[in-house]
Amino acid sequence: MNARAPWITYRPELKVVDCTIRDGGLINNHHFDADLVKAVYHACAAAGIDYMEIGYKNSRRLFPKEKFGPFRHCDEQDIRAIVGDNPTDMKLCAMADAEKSDYKTDILPKSESVLDCIRVATYVHQMPVARDMIFDAHEKGYEVWCNIMAISNVQEAEIDQALEMLADTPISTVAVVDSFGALYAEQVEMLVKKYQAALPDKIVGVHMHNNQQLAFANSIEGIIHGANRVDCTIAGLGRGAGNCCTELMLGFLRNPKFHIRPIYEVLESHFLKLREKIEWGPLVPYIITGQHNRHPRAAMEWRDGDKRDRFVEFYDRIVTDI
Amino acid sequence: MNARAPWITYRPELKVVDCTIRDGGLINNHHFDADLVKAVYHACAAAGIDYMEIGYKNSRRLFPKEKFGPFRHCDEQDIRAIVGDNPTDMKLCAMADAEKSDYKTDILPKSESVLDCIRVATYVHQMPVARDMIFDAHEKGYEVWCNIMAISNVQEAEIDQALEMLADTPISTVAVVDSFGALYAEQVEMLVKKYQAALPDKIVGVHMHNNQQLAFANSIEGIIHGANRVDCTIAGLGRGAGNCCTELMLGFLRNPKFHIRPIYEVLESHFLKLREKIEWGPLVPYIITGQHNRHPRAAMEWRDGDKRDRFVEFYDRIVTDI
Repeated sequence: MNARAPWITYRPELKVVDCTIRDGGLINNHHFDADLVKAVYHACAAAGIDYMEIGYKNSRRLFPKEKFGPFRHCDEQDIRAIVGDNPTDMKLCAMADAEKSDYKTDILPKSESVLDCIRVATYVHQMPVARDMIFDAHEKGYEVWCNIMAISNVQEAEIDQALEMLADTPISTVAVVDSFGALYAEQVEMLVKKYQAALPDKIVGVHMHNNQQLAFANSIEGIIHGANRVDCTIAGLGRGAGNCCTELMLGFLRNPKFHIRPIYEVLESHFLKLREKIEWGPLVPYIITGQHNRHPRAAMEWRDGDKRDRFVEFYDRIVTDI
Repeated sequence: MNARAPWITYRPELKVVDCTIRDGGLINNHHFDADLVKAVYHACAAAGIDYMEIGYKNSRRLFPKEKFGPFRHCDEQDIRAIVGDNPTDMKLCAMADAEKSDYKTDILPKSESVLDCIRVATYVHQMPVARDMIFDAHEKGYEVWCNIMAISNVQEAEIDQALEMLADTPISTVAVVDSFGALYAEQVEMLVKKYQAALPDKIVGVHMHNNQQLAFANSIEGIIHGANRVDCTIAGLGRGAGNCCTELMLGFLRNPKFHIRPIYEVLESHFLKLREKIEWGPLVPYIITGQHNRHPRAAMEWRDGDKRDRFVEFYDRIVTDI
């Protein structure tokens, strides 16, 4: 960027993915009221959001219908109950997790679905499965992304290998995903540049978590270094510490196609009530797992127990457990 | 920095100022229990914090004793009631605001005080007063800093002029202060470099606010570009959206002199209770004032009123008021 004050300029090619329902559903097993999902859909469309990720295409065997809400599976009729035929400019995505999705049967041909895009989420050791999923979704007619998760605690050679395994795939986009909220700005810069160098004909995206209150900042850092897709969620809704807030990201982006007011509307109308029922955000136990580059699972369990505010005991446990 | 992975290295000269009591007291008129102030003092000393800012040296005329707690004035006996003769390696500071401090009379000679350092806070238009305060405190024997506030909405020529007016003063340190939580990373970089270039024989510090969840990230950004003093507060305690969290900053800094566990101890023992009584943090109204580069005053008043969660009405008011 050669602009004198780049923070007041914009790149038209930079697009925003709101994954409030998909990522947020990891807190409550996707037991959202249809009313809230509809409100998020309409808010995102009105805000000029480019993609809305409405849920997972994950397995009914592993995530039974009795226990999980409809957006863990994204059956076609459940999506259409919210979006109809999606008469907006906003594209719809669903995420499919490697080894947790019956993708061959559950993902319909694009011609039969209102979905536009499948995002394949994978750990580095699942890359062969992820490749199969990518080709499957592409052949069915979708735009396909790949989100390689938990890269902050794998070896650099493994990241390089995973990127190499994406080079001949038909993905449009590969995302730098900070699953543990452990990355600092310099690491984000390094990773975005690495992904760009390894996959020069793909778009690079960023998906950041907020354990250390760095989700928004790290998303900006990725953007500064050329990431052109950015994931965020309204109120930062998401597992544990949550995500980059859509309302913060839209405040930063200067493209006049974006409108922040609809996001403040849905925050007021739906997210205040949601916060009375479920907890998320950069609370101390999530800070501690982020600082130690650990999955937030231990912190989530701690917050569910009767020692939820015993920060020092949790800290001692994490420190002695490394 | 030429390190391959600078985020796991450290600069011995980088020092931390905890200003929990000073900045946090702006929420509750410095009505802290002595027990909490003591707990913060002992936690900071145990954590290896370099400076603790214990309050303001502000005027009893403007901030009467009936309305404000002792750490708005930092009378010597009130400080000593907490720290004794301060038998620690940690230095103690107090802040004096230009035009709000009877500094000539209220700031004692260093030989009569347990304070080590006076931080002069000033708006650019108060620089002549600030200079007088700086010379006064230096002549009395203190280390002196200058914090130029609210630089995000003054003209660049004014910042340049203010820095020029500090060149011949005996300050050790000048801080980049984001009073409104409005700065993005690129602006922090630009300002830190500007301050360094203008005052090559002074240390540059950073003092960031968290309206856009960027206080920690912007502090890191300043550090990357050479800032060697960083302000933070426990739990981010501070007016409106609050500050960079001490617990986040110590997790980032790799100097083995720092210990994070005492901070988690005091968070658990004192800050959970405090949060039941007073509100701070990057809530939506503070996001909105940050995004619009406005003093958080309007948001604080909104949160005190009966429309505290009417985000859209507040947004409309701020947008139409520019």
